[in-house]
Amino acid sequence: MKYDFTFHNPTKIYFGRDAIKNLDAELSGFGECVLLVYGRAAIKKIGLYDEVIASLKRCGKRIVELEGIKSNPTYRQVLEGARLVRENSVDLILAVGGGSVIDCAKAISASAYCEGDPWQKYWVDFAPLDNKTVPVASILTMAGTASEMNGGSVITNEEKMIKEGRVFPQEVYPKFSILNPEYTFSVPKIQMVSGIFDIMSHIMEQYFSGDDDNVSDYILEALMKSLVRSAAVAVENPTDYEARSNIVWCATMALNKITGVSKQQDWQVHGIEHQIGAYTDCPHGIGLAVVSVPYYRYICRHGLHKFVRFAKNVWEIDTEGKTDEQIAEEGISALADFIASLGIPTTLRELGATEEMLPKIACSIPSEKGGYKPLTNDEIYEILKACF
Amino acid sequence: MKYDFTFHNPTKIYFGRDAIKNLDAELSGFGECVLLVYGRAAIKKIGLYDEVIASLKRCGKRIVELEGIKSNPTYRQVLEGARLVRENSVDLILAVGGGSVIDCAKAISASAYCEGDPWQKYWVDFAPLDNKTVPVASILTMAGTASEMNGGSVITNEEKMIKEGRVFPQEVYPKFSILNPEYTFSVPKIQMVSGIFDIMSHIMEQYFSGDDDNVSDYILEALMKSLVRSAAVAVENPTDYEARSNIVWCATMALNKITGVSKQQDWQVHGIEHQIGAYTDCPHGIGLAVVSVPYYRYICRHGLHKFVRFAKNVWEIDTEGKTDEQIAEEGISALADFIASLGIPTTLRELGATEEMLPKIACSIPSEKGGYKPLTNDEIYEILKACF
Repeated sequence: MKYDFTFHNPTKIYFGRDAIKNLDAELSGFGECVLLVYGRAAIKKIGLYDEVIASLKRCGKRIVELEGIKSNPTYRQVLEGARLVRENSVDLILAVGGGSVIDCAKAISASAYCEGDPWQKYWVDFAPLDNKTVPVASILTMAGTASEMNGGSVITNEEKMIKEGRVFPQEVYPKFSILNPEYTFSVPKIQMVSGIFDIMSHIMEQYFSGDDDNVSDYILEALMKSLVRSAAVAVENPTDYEARSNIVWCATMALNKITGVSKQQDWQVHGIEHQIGAYTDCPHGIGLAVVSVPYYRYICRHGLHKFVRFAKNVWEIDTEGKTDEQIAEEGISALADFIASLGIPTTLRELGATEEMLPKIACSIPSEKGGYKPLTNDEIYEILKACF
Repeated sequence: MKYDFTFHNPTKIYFGRDAIKNLDAELSGFGECVLLVYGRAAIKKIGLYDEVIASLKRCGKRIVELEGIKSNPTYRQVLEGARLVRENSVDLILAVGGGSVIDCAKAISASAYCEGDPWQKYWVDFAPLDNKTVPVASILTMAGTASEMNGGSVITNEEKMIKEGRVFPQEVYPKFSILNPEYTFSVPKIQMVSGIFDIMSHIMEQYFSGDDDNVSDYILEALMKSLVRSAAVAVENPTDYEARSNIVWCATMALNKITGVSKQQDWQVHGIEHQIGAYTDCPHGIGLAVVSVPYYRYICRHGLHKFVRFAKNVWEIDTEGKTDEQIAEEGISALADFIASLGIPTTLRELGATEEMLPKIACSIPSEKGGYKPLTNDEIYEILKACF
């Protein structure tokens, strides 16, 4: 085991029903011009848009707006935001929405003062961030990506048909994030369960790697157990505050990097889904759910000890008289049952993929090296067929 | 359940065998004069003192030293450090040692430019920190307190016979902390097990509160399971790098505040131990271990559901055919067995307490309100007698 890492996460989290009350004080720490980035209808419906505008006005801010950010935010929108930042000398980018909106805000921050083509530099060459950035902050309305407390920024380049993520350093992390679980109550059920499975996948893709037995493995199991329990409550009663709070906090914890320290990490399922998303524009978590069961069945024998542990510690599978293979398979079946309990589609076909797309998708996916079985493109194609 | 919190922990952690290599680069971010705070023998024996001095010299720092910090750091030493800070216009306080040394460094940071008596202001009145502070950083040599990643500062006022802790805000958190588990290899066994039980107590004192079922409860269980497993390895083989790494990281995670969000928290055991420490100067974790089993037996019926959960989820107690009371008692017995496996003394007598001390100690302990059963001083006295 390596057990060798740097951890640094300076984002300030305000969590709770009244968390928005901290907005005025936080805004006072930034300059005059604020770029407000958001989707559209959702934050207006719950009154959050009006509340944020009122706070910005109270604080004497000049407001520039970039609305209509899509659930897979596009590079075109990033460039549009970057132009607004430069033209208005924006001092703070305030993202109000889900992970897509926050990812987009971070991309704008990194791109606004980038010389040359930001896409090439940051999402193709993965160059270090070396230009001036603009502070980002967020008000979260959907649990899933943990973008509210990390440097991740997944952007879809529509022209190139590539959805690519990168992790920016601490300068681009939200300076503060406001998390009120009540904002997530009105998210449509498909988005809620998509977010829940996105969280589950983040946890699993850190967990299913390495032969070590370190603190992170135990914490990842804890997050899975809490998430599964709260998901069941939230599916029945979407306005259960405790359950939605647990889901929001599980989401943040699952990818604020503290659970991944010292873990090798896999991320192949995310790699596959990103390309499914680029071709079908499906909700991210739904794409992950479709891929996960066939993927984990395929790699299971290469990391059998961990799948046995997963079955026992997360799903409390009774192991008596069973082989390791049987125990592992029961764990994966329990995962499949969990997906079914969320009412998530289980085939690529249902997400709008066509049979002709599959080889193209398979060829566009890079093989990740951190999991139990690095895949060839042929193997990815086999898995995609199993998902179809 | 409240589920309403602010979380902000900007400390940067460098973890691993080579973590010290980051020291030069970090030092370059601070001014010329560094106050080096440490115990004495331990960091010289492992060569760390020479390594740190070499780094400070390479970086052109002017070095002021405050050595001989005790395992229960005294207010007198804090005042001495504060004087050195003022007289030398210190730019960075670098603590090299265990939690006591780091606690002392934070106290010096807060006290140096405090008008009036810092003890009265910060450890009696618990006034907000409102004076200038000096940046603190740490190089950790002993796992336990998590002082390397929080604002806690426990100081003993020898004149007043009071050991009191307070939590300072982010300005006083270490800017960076270097955690190399190998530094902990040479800690005497009694200090190692004292640290391990200090960690365990931090976790339990957050866990045993409230009727909620939130993410933090699951994470706290995860930390306990990982700690118990790694402690068993480390007691057998103190130079097992993975086990010592897990213990160091459990310690940091247990009190960097991320596991306590949304938890009411108890802290009565720490309250009792602080006064035992003030009277006997016993190692902190040993004092906690002596108090814990009688304390938890005493309060158990007031939070029975949580003690049942503790027994099942942490100790894997078989529950079949048993009453809740029996299950809970088996969990506490498992905790007692864990303490015994660490080779820790189990009575106050062994720590140097006398029978005459007990009523004085009991009277000096404030009752905490966050646990399952707020205690009167008479009840604390009964518990102390049970520990004697």
